Amino acid sequence: MMKLAIFGYGNLGRGVEAAVKKNPDATLVGVFTRRDPKAVKTVSGCPVYKESDLASFKGKIDVLILCGGSATDLPEQTPRLAKDFCVVDSFDTHAKIPEHFAAVNAAAKATNHTALISGGWDPGLFSLARLYATNVLPDGKDYTFWGKGVSQGHSDAIRRIDGVLDARQYTIPVEEALEAVRAGECPELSTREKHKRECFVVLKEGADPVAVETAIKTMPAYFADYDTTVHFISLEELKRDHAGLPHGGFVLRNGNTGNAGNKHTIEFRLALDSNPEFTGSVLVALARGVYKHFTAGDYGCKTVFDLAPADLSPLSREELLAHYL
Amino acid sequence: MMKLAIFGYGNLGRGVEAAVKKNPDATLVGVFTRRDPKAVKTVSGCPVYKESDLASFKGKIDVLILCGGSATDLPEQTPRLAKDFCVVDSFDTHAKIPEHFAAVNAAAKATNHTALISGGWDPGLFSLARLYATNVLPDGKDYTFWGKGVSQGHSDAIRRIDGVLDARQYTIPVEEALEAVRAGECPELSTREKHKRECFVVLKEGADPVAVETAIKTMPAYFADYDTTVHFISLEELKRDHAGLPHGGFVLRNGNTGNAGNKHTIEFRLALDSNPEFTGSVLVALARGVYKHFTAGDYGCKTVFDLAPADLSPLSREELLAHYL
Repeated sequence: MMKLAIFGYGNLGRGVEAAVKKNPDATLVGVFTRRDPKAVKTVSGCPVYKESDLASFKGKIDVLILCGGSATDLPEQTPRLAKDFCVVDSFDTHAKIPEHFAAVNAAAKATNHTALISGGWDPGLFSLARLYATNVLPDGKDYTFWGKGVSQGHSDAIRRIDGVLDARQYTIPVEEALEAVRAGECPELSTREKHKRECFVVLKEGADPVAVETAIKTMPAYFADYDTTVHFISLEELKRDHAGLPHGGFVLRNGNTGNAGNKHTIEFRLALDSNPEFTGSVLVALARGVYKHFTAGDYGCKTVFDLAPADLSPLSREELLAHYL
Repeated sequence: MMKLAIFGYGNLGRGVEAAVKKNPDATLVGVFTRRDPKAVKTVSGCPVYKESDLASFKGKIDVLILCGGSATDLPEQTPRLAKDFCVVDSFDTHAKIPEHFAAVNAAAKATNHTALISGGWDPGLFSLARLYATNVLPDGKDYTFWGKGVSQGHSDAIRRIDGVLDARQYTIPVEEALEAVRAGECPELSTREKHKRECFVVLKEGADPVAVETAIKTMPAYFADYDTTVHFISLEELKRDHAGLPHGGFVLRNGNTGNAGNKHTIEFRLALDSNPEFTGSVLVALARGVYKHFTAGDYGCKTVFDLAPADLSPLSREELLAHYL
């Protein structure tokens, strides 16, 4: 039995909590929060503790799953907590991964713990798809398309605009580009040619829709380089039609072998009703791998690239050989 | 530099030979054959040796890639050669994998070598797709569809029928079943509902087409449980239109998380112009992993489940962290 705990109880924390129930070899010690534990009610009824209570749980938690955000939470939390616990996080600021890895690796190695950063689906399963595909087709080109799905970062960016009450932004692959790549072509695609953005916006009373639409469509990095559609809807419509957090996407690699012009396409696709529940499920599987490496005395920071697929499975070698190969 | 050699020079051996050229960290020592080496000319011009010459290559080959067949070659060759070399094979008789693993593991462990069995794409990449998907979505159901592609076994079965000069058989997923699963449904599918079979047959002079067609369609295991179409064509048409060995397929898993009925689909798809060239490419990537484990002193038999994704890559941890995660 693997004893897990959750640090941070937002959408992702609840996703991890739900995932633990689907894994009979895992049990949930509790949820740790920065909020007042009395104000937090868990879905499963598992106990809630203050962050400061963690000190008394040393040795009672096999893997602590960190469910904070990548912007400010994880860069501070993961190295700090890796000194006392085996940890898993879903750090997703791609450009800062080497720096985060170095900090977590140093902390975990110094105290003989095992950590894994950047779990989830991108980075995570999509990274695996890119790496396996590149390993087997070194002469090729890969593509990642995201969506259709809700981007929290882009939704937040719209909410920060003056006059906006709430918003939901969908990232959508451009169908023609996706189909060309899926058919084996290797086009050069600009940002605009790969994805489009669709926004559902609730205005505050008296706000100017033209000004808001312009502010969205000209926002650098987030929207200016994309074909963006803006729909103004009521708060009721937003709650009714856009309450979910679906996501997904495609990793594709087209590659060549031999002298006869043979081509090959490798495609990995995810279609997810709930981004946080799926991400939570991936983190629990990765926690199993971390726990196995820790038990074997293999300390330090890992990524999805460092764990063998069998490490993520509760099954024995015999079962895997007989039924999964 | 990783020194590879090929044992057995048919379609797969040539596929491995082509793959070595795409991997700058690999070099090909030579091809070993049971035939007269003078009668074998390699595509790349690499040297050809007799099987019995292998003894003098001990210590000069990092990984020997075995390209024989699963029916009679590999069960004998892989355990025997694992005593003197690190080896990789593509043993694909699913039911006999545990037995083959045990034999190869014993041989490799006894002499401190590292081996990998059942590499390729199924078993191989498809096994990885099934295992990763099951690990992250334990509450779910998976499906494997093969094709459209040439099945050598089924083509051979037709060739053994009296009156048949040559034949090519395509395995094709049933579109309705595939699309239902891709859309997230979890139907119970019979053999007939999953795949259909299309046969292109060249008759010997004077053969009875009705008798041949009946013999094909009623052949147990191979065709009787499938909707099978038989086309009679000329030898010229067979050579012109059916010379390639394309294959591919789909691994899908639909799974559930949480209490709100959220569903998720994970899909892995391959579309391959050349089954042997792609399989050869996978074997070379796996040879890299075998070589790394051997160098680290990790002996015995492995499968794709036991090698971390980073083991298959020529890139450093720093490069992987910066560019692939």
